[in-house]
Amino acid sequence: MAATPADVRENPNSYMFVMDMPGMKLWKIKVQVEDHLLTVNGERKREEKEGTEYLKMERRMGKFMRKFPLPHNSNAIADVMSALYQDGVFTVTVKKLPPPEPKKPKLIEIEVKID
Amino acid sequence: MAATPADVRENPNSYMFVMDMPGMKLWKIKVQVEDHLLTVNGERKREEKEGTEYLKMERRMGKFMRKFPLPHNSNAIADVMSALYQDGVFTVTVKKLPPPEPKKPKLIEIEVKID
Repeated sequence: MAATPADVRENPNSYMFVMDMPGMKLWKIKVQVEDHLLTVNGERKREEKEGTEYLKMERRMGKFMRKFPLPHNSNAIADVMSALYQDGVFTVTVKKLPPPEPKKPKLIEIEVKID
Repeated sequence: MAATPADVRENPNSYMFVMDMPGMKLWKIKVQVEDHLLTVNGERKREEKEGTEYLKMERRMGKFMRKFPLPHNSNAIADVMSALYQDGVFTVTVKKLPPPEPKKPKLIEIEVKID
């Protein structure tokens, strides 16, 4: 699981960071935001049971970490982010900041003299 | 998703074929058994939505297929298999056949002649 493939989606009002993480639990995935950097990490362990033997082990286990720089216009406050884990796919949604208000045209008074 | 990593587990009474398949639905995964060969296939598609743009696309999409030869002592009848899809992990469980009854020792009568 060292390789955790991810998609990054831009929606009209948000960014979505979508990661394949089969066999995890939502509460085992850690999400942090610092200096406009989103970090997601966790650990996946192979199920061990007495009397069970693995004849083939291709699924990657172990610790994983992904880092995503957040775009400049994202609302990089952990409180307004949301996370969802469904069918082994973990998605973090980060809202965009509202676009800056258009600058008002400066009024410059010009004195017009008529002779 | 061309690469669908799998583990194969042997339990005292069954074999388990465990595959990482994040972002699927159980009813979209096809399972077949023929001549002691287990075949699992399906297709994963990336979500498309108007107004959405992908800035990064690492998650593998498309058709996938895995084949597993079933061990000689497995009960290779589709009716007695079970399949489970949880947290993006698909597991097919195949029961073992009961072990063959121990051969009864053959009684050979020997005529013993006492002179």
